[in-house]
Amino acid sequence: MNLNILEKNLGYKFKDKNLLKLALTHKSSKTPKNNERLEFLGDAVMDLIVAEYLCQKFKDTNEGELSKLRAALVNETSFSNLAKNLNLGNFIFLSNAEEQNNGRHKNSILSDAFEAIMGAIYIEGGLEICKNIAIRLLEKNYDEIDSKSLLKDYKTTLQEITQAKFGATPMYKLISSQGPDHEKKFVMGVFLNDKKYGESLGKSKKDAEQKAAKKAIEKIEKENI
Amino acid sequence: MNLNILEKNLGYKFKDKNLLKLALTHKSSKTPKNNERLEFLGDAVMDLIVAEYLCQKFKDTNEGELSKLRAALVNETSFSNLAKNLNLGNFIFLSNAEEQNNGRHKNSILSDAFEAIMGAIYIEGGLEICKNIAIRLLEKNYDEIDSKSLLKDYKTTLQEITQAKFGATPMYKLISSQGPDHEKKFVMGVFLNDKKYGESLGKSKKDAEQKAAKKAIEKIEKENI
Repeated sequence: MNLNILEKNLGYKFKDKNLLKLALTHKSSKTPKNNERLEFLGDAVMDLIVAEYLCQKFKDTNEGELSKLRAALVNETSFSNLAKNLNLGNFIFLSNAEEQNNGRHKNSILSDAFEAIMGAIYIEGGLEICKNIAIRLLEKNYDEIDSKSLLKDYKTTLQEITQAKFGATPMYKLISSQGPDHEKKFVMGVFLNDKKYGESLGKSKKDAEQKAAKKAIEKIEKENI
Repeated sequence: MNLNILEKNLGYKFKDKNLLKLALTHKSSKTPKNNERLEFLGDAVMDLIVAEYLCQKFKDTNEGELSKLRAALVNETSFSNLAKNLNLGNFIFLSNAEEQNNGRHKNSILSDAFEAIMGAIYIEGGLEICKNIAIRLLEKNYDEIDSKSLLKDYKTTLQEITQAKFGATPMYKLISSQGPDHEKKFVMGVFLNDKKYGESLGKSKKDAEQKAAKKAIEKIEKENI
């Protein structure tokens, strides 16, 4: 495995190649050490880098909006996309079983390895170098980093995911309603090919649909279907 | 208000006094700007500083344990204690209403201001300076930073809190049980002076008590009773 290619994609040359290898070592490898500690550190590194980036980019945006923007950038799906852009999957060390299980393409494994790589660069190169690399990767991955592009509602996001993964559109159905007319609440379910992916209670049907869509997204991401 | 004293307590002299003042400005002040953005940044700064500190201090500890240790150090109660050691409450700018409402002593306001100060030091002084200050404050506040000292169970923690705040010991009562004998589940409630502070379902009474105690701690912290 030629780690030079990965280093070229990253734009960073590790002095300590063992540190890079550790960052690429998934826990399934059953080696004495794996990348979980580096991932723990890298997660915090990315949180800070993105927080600072957003504060500098949006001088007048309030904290609530900044938090939402960060949540849209710092999550498993986002990091797994950055990992894919780096072809990181090709370089991860994992067990044969995990290999058979399509581990190289799992969002969770890719995202964790990406965080571990960032943790490793932070340890060796410091925050500034890590910042430059992370921001270059983020800006390359997103056409625009702003509220309009990043903060899509959950129903839209779910539809994009299900179209891409299953070629299907989610359906919303009223499951029940409760309470008197002036303060009725609704339970809406979201279905995909007649299978329920989530349901939620809301003050309006639309509100309940949004919450149900959020649950469905989490379910799909968790199951990594 | 003599901010020199605060700077002396912090061990850091701000070049930009307006930045320091901004970090001390609670949103109740109704000034055009407040400390929320700095708090957002400072929160991420502290997360990274503590993550790195723990990684360096505990070379062989796994990620799960490191996460628990960090959660014990990076939270509202912990940061409000650091704030109190700095007498930060004396220096916060807040509205008269919040002042009457004992705002200067609220854990949430103190913790937020502490994070904002760290965010401000990070912006002006960079990560290394911020790291030195934060670690000095943490090590001064905790006798020992290790699992044995930090990771007390929730029942013990709740008892310490209720003893200190109310001079009372929490009582646990069985509220209900469900399921067949071989997989019975229990709902335990935790009471303080006959008022219920939390209840939770668990696989054993002990398990349910721990979860109920956790809820009670969160309730007490939230209400800042």
